[in-house]
Amino acid sequence: MNIIDNIKGASIKRSVDSGTEEQRRAVQAIIAEVKKAGDDALHRLTEKFDGVHLESLAVTRDEIEDAFSGLDPELITIIEEAACNIRDFHEKQKRPSWFETKADGTMLGQKMTPLDSVGVYVPGGTAAYPSSVLMNVLPAKVAGVERIVMVSPPGKDGKIPAGVLVAAEIAGVKEIYKVGGAQAVAALAYGTESIASVDKITGPGNIYVALAKREVFGDVDIDMIAGPSEIVILADGHQHADEIAADLLSQAEHDVLASAVLVTDSSELAEKVSREVEEQLSSLPREGIARRSIEEYGTIYVVDSMEEGVEVVNDLAPEHLEILTAHPFETMASIRHAGAIFLGRYSSEPVGDYFAGPNHVLPTNGTARFSSPLNVDEFMKKTSIISYSEAALKEHGDKIAKLARLEGLEAHARAVEIRFKGEK
Amino acid sequence: MNIIDNIKGASIKRSVDSGTEEQRRAVQAIIAEVKKAGDDALHRLTEKFDGVHLESLAVTRDEIEDAFSGLDPELITIIEEAACNIRDFHEKQKRPSWFETKADGTMLGQKMTPLDSVGVYVPGGTAAYPSSVLMNVLPAKVAGVERIVMVSPPGKDGKIPAGVLVAAEIAGVKEIYKVGGAQAVAALAYGTESIASVDKITGPGNIYVALAKREVFGDVDIDMIAGPSEIVILADGHQHADEIAADLLSQAEHDVLASAVLVTDSSELAEKVSREVEEQLSSLPREGIARRSIEEYGTIYVVDSMEEGVEVVNDLAPEHLEILTAHPFETMASIRHAGAIFLGRYSSEPVGDYFAGPNHVLPTNGTARFSSPLNVDEFMKKTSIISYSEAALKEHGDKIAKLARLEGLEAHARAVEIRFKGEK
Repeated sequence: MNIIDNIKGASIKRSVDSGTEEQRRAVQAIIAEVKKAGDDALHRLTEKFDGVHLESLAVTRDEIEDAFSGLDPELITIIEEAACNIRDFHEKQKRPSWFETKADGTMLGQKMTPLDSVGVYVPGGTAAYPSSVLMNVLPAKVAGVERIVMVSPPGKDGKIPAGVLVAAEIAGVKEIYKVGGAQAVAALAYGTESIASVDKITGPGNIYVALAKREVFGDVDIDMIAGPSEIVILADGHQHADEIAADLLSQAEHDVLASAVLVTDSSELAEKVSREVEEQLSSLPREGIARRSIEEYGTIYVVDSMEEGVEVVNDLAPEHLEILTAHPFETMASIRHAGAIFLGRYSSEPVGDYFAGPNHVLPTNGTARFSSPLNVDEFMKKTSIISYSEAALKEHGDKIAKLARLEGLEAHARAVEIRFKGEK
Repeated sequence: MNIIDNIKGASIKRSVDSGTEEQRRAVQAIIAEVKKAGDDALHRLTEKFDGVHLESLAVTRDEIEDAFSGLDPELITIIEEAACNIRDFHEKQKRPSWFETKADGTMLGQKMTPLDSVGVYVPGGTAAYPSSVLMNVLPAKVAGVERIVMVSPPGKDGKIPAGVLVAAEIAGVKEIYKVGGAQAVAALAYGTESIASVDKITGPGNIYVALAKREVFGDVDIDMIAGPSEIVILADGHQHADEIAADLLSQAEHDVLASAVLVTDSSELAEKVSREVEEQLSSLPREGIARRSIEEYGTIYVVDSMEEGVEVVNDLAPEHLEILTAHPFETMASIRHAGAIFLGRYSSEPVGDYFAGPNHVLPTNGTARFSSPLNVDEFMKKTSIISYSEAALKEHGDKIAKLARLEGLEAHARAVEIRFKGEK
């Protein structure tokens, strides 16, 4: 790994693939086709891109049952336990509507309402992750979204992987369609004969899916467009180099664009971790991917003090942050920007990817400066409630009219005054 | 007004101005120029677009004091009272960080952190609204944002209107720059010698400002791109036609694209309101604008029952909704989609625009299906906290490793197992 001990502005920002003009036009054409031809277009595009002819897009009960029979029962139990943890954590994010009343009879409040419907995109192939199904579906479910639709491209065999279907069933998804790519996003945004449109689309996907989400944004809501994954580990000299190396590699194996960073005040630890990474790399099944990620985006920053280390972390604003110090909770208090923080030796990052409960959909590429993990709020909207009494409007009406006239909006002033027109 | 008594799918969606290719290129060129030449570019572009040469972009203490001397002291007191109400309401939206601990020593939580810095755009000319300053700045202030920067284009006299400066001072803004348009957005996103960059940009603006916000989105966060304003009034036959007409017109005077809609089960009320609108229109200073809005987007839907009326409202998903029924609170319970709801005769919509406390920045154009009023959450981000104990990782580590292997991510499994490698 690249060891840097003279830091001038740390950053893990990588250039985001925003697609070529050609890809954008292709996506626009697909969306137009789905808008025009509906299910026919979906079947045609699925044959073209997924190389499979489907009688029906909807996943049947039989397919769900086959998925359960096809999966190790122990794994099913583990997925259920993970779902339970994720549900519990997200329940705590849920907020009730509230109201306040004032002596003059005024009532103000905020009404919380779940979205009517949400579509979850699940990628196909090797990126078909059951954990991703749980993390995208359960916050919507906890929010109270009535209709949750899942879409995922079928394999050459016309099927969706068993793990994904099992996770969807456990999460409570009642509608699943075998369709992927920009055509799936278009169907979710505008509806077809068999897929009714939704209000929000979430979930990761390739560049075509990301571009399609950008195109339909505004007509429906979308979640963030996620970039490649990152981990930053902030460790003092007393930590275990082998464990740190393993955690860095767990991030690096995701993607050649993934970024694994160690920040430490110990050059001895820096050297040890660098050697450990090299040693562990060679026995990994995904060695090729992990090696390229480490070579390109793996960095060890050696800082003068842990205080400087905290500053570097805040500059990086990482998706995942592990804090390995004598007093990790105290260190945490100084961290302003991170998607998720893992405290202490036994909070290895994969604990959060799969099982602990908090969401693994996190802000990447420095956007933790202003973005949050996927959460229940994103599947609910707020409505402001204003109820003024006669006494309240009598007392404050003149002020409101004055403010309106200051802004040159006479009809606003008159709307208030007309309530009392006979009385003055 | 256009009275419709046979409703087939109500909608207030208007085509949103997403700018021409030429406008987009102009905005991209301006952003590139500001990135390259900084303050020099800002001065040059201000001379070009605002027709004024400025010695310094920053608003001085003297200018603030002049603004206070230039405004009616009673108005200053009213703005202070409005600010107080807005602050109070938004304080109730604020949420603390939280943690939970489990018997095995696991601790999970959510840390709330305000954004470091926010830029607020305030339009110039006749759209320079003090109320808009309060509504954009105060949620950020309540969230705890340390640095709030305001930008607004100078008039031909090189000044920002007194009302806007007074509102900014009352809201607690410490940095104000006289710069507008796409160049102001670029300065906020990327920084210049005199304006340090921010993490999020909010506030309304013309098409160039909107396009610039879209361009910089991702590098910084932005708020929603607001469309023209709307009001829907749901009223039964016992309500006051003159007051309803006045409220419809208060919306129509904003913009020729504004939409004012009445939904009622009484054709008698429909007729009365239509006549009242015509009568009141003729004496409005902004008659031209209001008349065009009413002619193009003003509609009265006559429904068979108030239940059907509620359905129509949910289809419209309005920015502002007034409920004028015998029991407005009961009616409200059935409303799923609205930005803000005004209950009863004394809650005329301008009450919310200026004074009551809830935000007047609301989702438009049907986006209340999935969006919320501007609120404190948008100026804070969440960070997930995960702390596993040795006992917890021992108990659950195997399950986590199994899930990782199901997804083909061996390094994830090993990161967990390496913690206990000597023990098995």
